[in-house]
Amino acid sequence: MIASSGLSALLGTKVFCKAELFQHTGSFKVRGGFNTALSLTEDERARGVIAFSAGNHAMSVAHVGVTLGVPVTVCMPAHAVQFKVDAVRAMGATLELVEGDLVAHVMRRRDELGATLIHPFDDPAIVAGHASAGVEIIEDLPEVDTVIVPVGSGGLISGVAAAIKLAKPNTRIIGVEPETADVIRRSRAAGGPVAHPGPKSLADGLAAPVTGQINLDHIDAYVDEMVVITEDSVRPAWRELLAHGKLAGEPAAACGIAAIRTGLISVDPDETVCLVICGGNADFDNLGG
Amino acid sequence: MIASSGLSALLGTKVFCKAELFQHTGSFKVRGGFNTALSLTEDERARGVIAFSAGNHAMSVAHVGVTLGVPVTVCMPAHAVQFKVDAVRAMGATLELVEGDLVAHVMRRRDELGATLIHPFDDPAIVAGHASAGVEIIEDLPEVDTVIVPVGSGGLISGVAAAIKLAKPNTRIIGVEPETADVIRRSRAAGGPVAHPGPKSLADGLAAPVTGQINLDHIDAYVDEMVVITEDSVRPAWRELLAHGKLAGEPAAACGIAAIRTGLISVDPDETVCLVICGGNADFDNLGG
Repeated sequence: MIASSGLSALLGTKVFCKAELFQHTGSFKVRGGFNTALSLTEDERARGVIAFSAGNHAMSVAHVGVTLGVPVTVCMPAHAVQFKVDAVRAMGATLELVEGDLVAHVMRRRDELGATLIHPFDDPAIVAGHASAGVEIIEDLPEVDTVIVPVGSGGLISGVAAAIKLAKPNTRIIGVEPETADVIRRSRAAGGPVAHPGPKSLADGLAAPVTGQINLDHIDAYVDEMVVITEDSVRPAWRELLAHGKLAGEPAAACGIAAIRTGLISVDPDETVCLVICGGNADFDNLGG
Repeated sequence: MIASSGLSALLGTKVFCKAELFQHTGSFKVRGGFNTALSLTEDERARGVIAFSAGNHAMSVAHVGVTLGVPVTVCMPAHAVQFKVDAVRAMGATLELVEGDLVAHVMRRRDELGATLIHPFDDPAIVAGHASAGVEIIEDLPEVDTVIVPVGSGGLISGVAAAIKLAKPNTRIIGVEPETADVIRRSRAAGGPVAHPGPKSLADGLAAPVTGQINLDHIDAYVDEMVVITEDSVRPAWRELLAHGKLAGEPAAACGIAAIRTGLISVDPDETVCLVICGGNADFDNLGG
């Protein structure tokens, strides 16, 4: 938890950053991954874990498996970003690059291997693992009034919101989605999970095509407000995260700043605001646009 | 103090970052400024403080004066970077933009105002203030083997090295200068402070034209080694500080990474290395070169 005098001055409120970008593999994802793998029986651990992802979740599960000595297979789309593919390979996970239907491939390989699938978001063990970030926020910053969380598939906010609301119900929890990657807004409007046909945002960590019922249920129960930011507001906020927050986060991590700067979230000078800086895996050459 | 798994993997050693970029005004400079201002008598405080600087020291003294309610006059060269001029003005300090001889102007104004000059580096109170960073390093990371400090005029390393060597003499302390801004190397070769005719580096926070005898004496007494990095090594290291360290530091803050990456400093896998991330006031549009 980092007190930010620079962001406090910029945003006109008392800003603290929950700095998940410093986690192993550069994002919060290892929280859910470790919790899931540590919940397995000895027999399940021996048969290993499997995951599919184009990005942060792939690196997270590879790190978890290798660290715990659990056989780990990571299936990534053939078009995944090269540095993330290289990172998974370098960690020593078994890497399978997949053309075509990634999920079908993973389900087949899971059955062949007898492995346990570590889902990126739609799983109680994942949500419970991510909830540890919420527990730490309350421990480190008990005076917090408002917690702002970037939202993709909704795994992170499901856990963070539940942990905080159960410990301190009068805390305001706000989720932020990009307008061009708004699978939660679409799913809530439809009354259940619907696929986004083509999520795309500079905040690529939030460009999720699907969510889960467990995530929608947690958001309904524990999140006060969901806001949707414009795509144009992401890059300036990302630059402000670096220049004023001094944190080299990924664009997704700046969505809370974007929401405040564009007036979608109002904050008072006396308010204690926690921005969840969800990760730091970015190509900083894109800063200038 | 931030444990960096990303920089540890990159550099092949156990890396911790002393994150001075999160200080008020974005650099370590406030340490010396506060120590100096808090050492003044009531009468001296009433007459105020004065400082000259083109950059981080200007912002630091403005912040210190305004925070303590001490009248503060900051003299900056007319060509200073606009955002730093704006920052000093916004804090509420009296700002004087000076064409021509900045030091002569400041000495005249000091005498007119009866103010105390807060020197950027050549002063025991400044060195003692900066030493608090060294005290914190030993408190937070008692197992540290090596501390690497970026060096401009030598104010920071004077304090950090003294604090650490007096507490834990077997700690290795290394200073890093850019080859094109090497006033310490030149002054040590000359046997006393000499001016650098035109220091210039991407690591602009280290481009100091002068140093002080007190700084040279501290380096002689407490620093194990001074290394000089190539200018070409700064930008790649700066990018690595962001991409692997996840810290939006200024180029100067990356000089320790540059020194390790170019083989000027050797580190072992079992070694605990503390990089002093001296500040974060940068134009990140320059990342790409």
